[in-house]
Amino acid sequence: MLNTLIVGASGYTGAELAAYLQRHLHVHLSGLMVSSQSSDAGKCFSDLYPQYKGIVDLPLQPLTDVAEAVNGIDVVFLATAHEVSHDIVPIFLQAGCTVFDLSGAYRVQNTQFYSKYYGFEHKNTAWLDKAVYGLAEWQAEKIKTAQLIAVPGCYPTVSQLSLKPLLEKNLLDTEQWPVINAVSGVSGAGRKATINNSFCEVSLQPYGIFNHRHQPEIAAHLGTEVIFIPHLGNFSRGILATITCKLKSGVTEEQIREAYQQVYHDKPLVRLYTEGMPALKAVVGLPFCDIGFAVQGQHLIIVGAEDNLLKGAAAQAVQCMNIRFGFAETQALL
Amino acid sequence: MLNTLIVGASGYTGAELAAYLQRHLHVHLSGLMVSSQSSDAGKCFSDLYPQYKGIVDLPLQPLTDVAEAVNGIDVVFLATAHEVSHDIVPIFLQAGCTVFDLSGAYRVQNTQFYSKYYGFEHKNTAWLDKAVYGLAEWQAEKIKTAQLIAVPGCYPTVSQLSLKPLLEKNLLDTEQWPVINAVSGVSGAGRKATINNSFCEVSLQPYGIFNHRHQPEIAAHLGTEVIFIPHLGNFSRGILATITCKLKSGVTEEQIREAYQQVYHDKPLVRLYTEGMPALKAVVGLPFCDIGFAVQGQHLIIVGAEDNLLKGAAAQAVQCMNIRFGFAETQALL
Amino acid sequence: MLNTLIVGASGYTGAELAAYLQRHLHVHLSGLMVSSQSSDAGKCFSDLYPQYKGIVDLPLQPLTDVAEAVNGIDVVFLATAHEVSHDIVPIFLQAGCTVFDLSGAYRVQNTQFYSKYYGFEHKNTAWLDKAVYGLAEWQAEKIKTAQLIAVPGCYPTVSQLSLKPLLEKNLLDTEQWPVINAVSGVSGAGRKATINNSFCEVSLQPYGIFNHRHQPEIAAHLGTEVIFIPHLGNFSRGILATITCKLKSGVTEEQIREAYQQVYHDKPLVRLYTEGMPALKAVVGLPFCDIGFAVQGQHLIIVGAEDNLLKGAAAQAVQCMNIRFGFAETQALL
Amino acid sequence: MLNTLIVGASGYTGAELAAYLQRHLHVHLSGLMVSSQSSDAGKCFSDLYPQYKGIVDLPLQPLTDVAEAVNGIDVVFLATAHEVSHDIVPIFLQAGCTVFDLSGAYRVQNTQFYSKYYGFEHKNTAWLDKAVYGLAEWQAEKIKTAQLIAVPGCYPTVSQLSLKPLLEKNLLDTEQWPVINAVSGVSGAGRKATINNSFCEVSLQPYGIFNHRHQPEIAAHLGTEVIFIPHLGNFSRGILATITCKLKSGVTEEQIREAYQQVYHDKPLVRLYTEGMPALKAVVGLPFCDIGFAVQGQHLIIVGAEDNLLKGAAAQAVQCMNIRFGFAETQALL
Repeated sequence: MLNTLIVGASGYTGAELAAYLQRHLHVHLSGLMVSSQSSDAGKCFSDLYPQYKGIVDLPLQPLTDVAEAVNGIDVVFLATAHEVSHDIVPIFLQAGCTVFDLSGAYRVQNTQFYSKYYGFEHKNTAWLDKAVYGLAEWQAEKIKTAQLIAVPGCYPTVSQLSLKPLLEKNLLDTEQWPVINAVSGVSGAGRKATINNSFCEVSLQPYGIFNHRHQPEIAAHLGTEVIFIPHLGNFSRGILATITCKLKSGVTEEQIREAYQQVYHDKPLVRLYTEGMPALKAVVGLPFCDIGFAVQGQHLIIVGAEDNLLKGAAAQAVQCMNIRFGFAETQALL
Repeated sequence: MLNTLIVGASGYTGAELAAYLQRHLHVHLSGLMVSSQSSDAGKCFSDLYPQYKGIVDLPLQPLTDVAEAVNGIDVVFLATAHEVSHDIVPIFLQAGCTVFDLSGAYRVQNTQFYSKYYGFEHKNTAWLDKAVYGLAEWQAEKIKTAQLIAVPGCYPTVSQLSLKPLLEKNLLDTEQWPVINAVSGVSGAGRKATINNSFCEVSLQPYGIFNHRHQPEIAAHLGTEVIFIPHLGNFSRGILATITCKLKSGVTEEQIREAYQQVYHDKPLVRLYTEGMPALKAVVGLPFCDIGFAVQGQHLIIVGAEDNLLKGAAAQAVQCMNIRFGFAETQALL
Repeated sequence: MLNTLIVGASGYTGAELAAYLQRHLHVHLSGLMVSSQSSDAGKCFSDLYPQYKGIVDLPLQPLTDVAEAVNGIDVVFLATAHEVSHDIVPIFLQAGCTVFDLSGAYRVQNTQFYSKYYGFEHKNTAWLDKAVYGLAEWQAEKIKTAQLIAVPGCYPTVSQLSLKPLLEKNLLDTEQWPVINAVSGVSGAGRKATINNSFCEVSLQPYGIFNHRHQPEIAAHLGTEVIFIPHLGNFSRGILATITCKLKSGVTEEQIREAYQQVYHDKPLVRLYTEGMPALKAVVGLPFCDIGFAVQGQHLIIVGAEDNLLKGAAAQAVQCMNIRFGFAETQALL
Repeated sequence: MLNTLIVGASGYTGAELAAYLQRHLHVHLSGLMVSSQSSDAGKCFSDLYPQYKGIVDLPLQPLTDVAEAVNGIDVVFLATAHEVSHDIVPIFLQAGCTVFDLSGAYRVQNTQFYSKYYGFEHKNTAWLDKAVYGLAEWQAEKIKTAQLIAVPGCYPTVSQLSLKPLLEKNLLDTEQWPVINAVSGVSGAGRKATINNSFCEVSLQPYGIFNHRHQPEIAAHLGTEVIFIPHLGNFSRGILATITCKLKSGVTEEQIREAYQQVYHDKPLVRLYTEGMPALKAVVGLPFCDIGFAVQGQHLIIVGAEDNLLKGAAAQAVQCMNIRFGFAETQALL
């Protein structure tokens, strides 16, 4: 049994992590922590999340001393702000923990990326160099020996899982940048009190056009530029990404299907559609990324769907842990 | 043309008032004001409410000096916090304005009510005594000559409109207190950033059982005790109130129908159902209160519905103004 | 391993049963059946419910010959129409199966109940007499030896779990009938194409006042009359029941709390609230019934919540099976 | 006062037409008709749409004899099925009515379009040739003298209003087809009982990729090919279209802004955004089409929003009537 700790357990991603870890057969959920400034410090987890009453009733402890928190912990999940992760990851690593960081702080091995898109200077470049990007279906070999796994963001996960098999097979004409139109549930903005997230204000709308941080994360890892247009949807959970690409001349539907099959036929958390298209309801509450596509001439439309909090965050983090420690890949997830 | 001013125009009720007043044939919307501390001060109204872009593009002016604000104003609508209304109502009145106050500050002519339920000491008792309660269908005669109209709260409006005809006719056995189960949309909590109002947190649930301020407002004006159970619903607007009462022995369905007909047959904003029951969709966005009922033996169930922001607030305020100044009762409302 | 069959697997309750049974450790999900007239016959289950793609991909077989269907089956779950259950229950029983019937056909041991409220004559009175009502927390001893378990309806489950501890302890003045105001999600109406269930038509509204079949089911099993007011809510799943009762003179809050504790302290699927009140979000997707209450004088308000498809149907059916066969009560449910 | 008739008044678009026409200052709403096969024939309009109780209580008359129906009617609005419109338009025209057809039957002056995309042979080609496409901001001159106005579909309206100013000014590199990603509310599918439209089944998903009839309608009227990807959203009303285009080399943001301004600066129902982007909530319930855009290099993203039932149907039809008869363009609409 691994002793596991969640830091940032009061947020939506942290809460999903808690639910997964408490029912994981090979893991003990040792503690839940929040920032010491958080007004939730000291509360019971299930007071914030009444659905877990009787299931996870642990206290939300303030993270005042990382060195103390790490005591006896094998694995830590960080569902913390980018800057917080940046600072505390090294402490957990130096103490010998395996770290699954769900923030953006260790996802791109380029310090300029952080000054430009995250507004802080990355000071832990030695660790940044060693971080493995936790896109689970693609990085399994590296994850198996990593000590620091930087779990991808929600939009990047669905975008990369949808595009990467075709790029690897060189099927796309990337001079015409793929257009990623994605709609995310409100939970993507985190658990916080803002007018924009308030019930009466939410309605379908685009945001962050040409300046969302997930665009360079996607482009960096795919090795190609994309147009990324995120939208806020009037639902709590899930992301639907509709991606329009140009195929190279002569590429057939069969080649596309084979490209996906070859990569994902043995991957339990990616479901390929041979007919129909993914809908949000197919993935909400589940750890899958669903992918379908349609072709007309050189036009390819890919539709990817996932639960932003699960395959886009907590489920993928647990999947990475399962891979890292040799557990069944879907343990606790299905 | 009356010159009208809205104070508290950044909130949901204030916004509905602005929309009504701008299309009112006999009224000029002279200005929109917000608290001088508000972060919305100085913004354009339609930046907060993009649906009114091109319709109401007035600035939200900070209310720094009431004496100055009142200049040239005939009528003021206060969609302000109770304490703010308490303080500024007299200034507007002394300047000769007719005031429609949508807060709770002048609704109950009993100063103990304020210390007990609102947590402040009422210091303007002379004005409180002169205030007319703006339950429009019942107070029209008094409204016609009033200078201060205290517009009822959303729950009290639907509750009183539903119960008052039967109480006046003495048809209810009030030893068994009527049970008012009501579900309100999230807009009832106002436009503000709180975790409780955030999109992912809202779900149907009761609140304020045995301690909601609208219970004594209802009881005071009906002259009988009630059990009032408010709920938050997972929708933006509207209130559905399901009221269970005991009829006096021998009272017939026909007597009930007559009691309603007698009061409301010529009232344009109350719609009586002869079959079926009100649904929320029948009233959202509209200035009506819809009422239906069912009888079995001595058991009576009344179902009332209204838009909490309209007949439960802004529309009733404008209806009161229309009555006060002799305009058609539904001018600007339908 | 028990071989289990679901009849009526295309409906919302049947689908939840399928999900539970496929992950049950002691059960094999042998088959999914639908009415032979159903347009879904022959389809793959996960074509109707894409969330179960890769999890439950069984075909929906037409139930043409019950005698054949029963072959090798130990346990059958019937999520069928009342009349269908009425007819086929005896065939499964005679073949030696244990039957969990989620319809209303065997819930009340009174044939007049069926002619009056269900519109058909009950012809299987011998089996009706032997049926055990599957209100799991109250009927465990009888369930352990039953061959036919009639699982309660969704409204009756939450209503009885809320009221029965107090009635058993004789704490309520039932001359004043308890008022059960309940709001149910749209899934309660089943998976079917009707205008009333269509997306644009749904909004909060009452229905079935004084003539809903769950009223006599509740009254029959509680042994006391109630006023039952069901509502349709604008959400897919869940029921919130707000129940107003009169306490006997002198009954204290402590007595009420003790009454609940005594019955439910060791029941894993009933969660008692010592502060706050149940909200829908606390139970949706989960097998619990949550109960809270508030007292003022002789007025008692109880709030119960459950997922109508789970504790109100599928989860309780599986819970009954777990009790019947000596499995852990929450196996497959948590 | 014009005498107006609505055929197909039981549907969502017909209902919006009824609401507009009843409050139009220069129009008399003479009658509401439905197909003689409709189960709604004979019902009161406000029984289907309780929000209009007391506002529009006309009966839904069966359309059995068009020749009789036309008696005394100046203007008819057809919110009927394509095939029905195809057949009855000539009868109304021959009787001298001005016809506003909201179906697709007279939108594209190419009979092959109908055999290919609508599955029927167009037999009224003489009238088809005379029909004017009612994209109001662009066809005003032709509308003023037309007898048959074919009001555009919902997706085509927002798509064309967004793209046409730029195409007219030759600012787009159309070798790279514009990608129109659009999400529509469920009301777009009409008022009917289907599983797909039922409350529990709706969730965000694409449909009709590469085979939706609005694609060739858009392409035919724009004179350029587009990729059109419609989605069903989990909301009742509204369309948000996110359109990605390639600019010709050297085209500036200023040129784009000017192109829009030049066409729309005096058009009351198109609102241009100089900052921020349209959101669904800005247009639902209102007759506007809102347009915003963002540029990066040669990449242009346009965001258009409208209420699919209003600017995408009923409001545009009334706008066309206002233009046709010289009324104020927004009469009854604002």
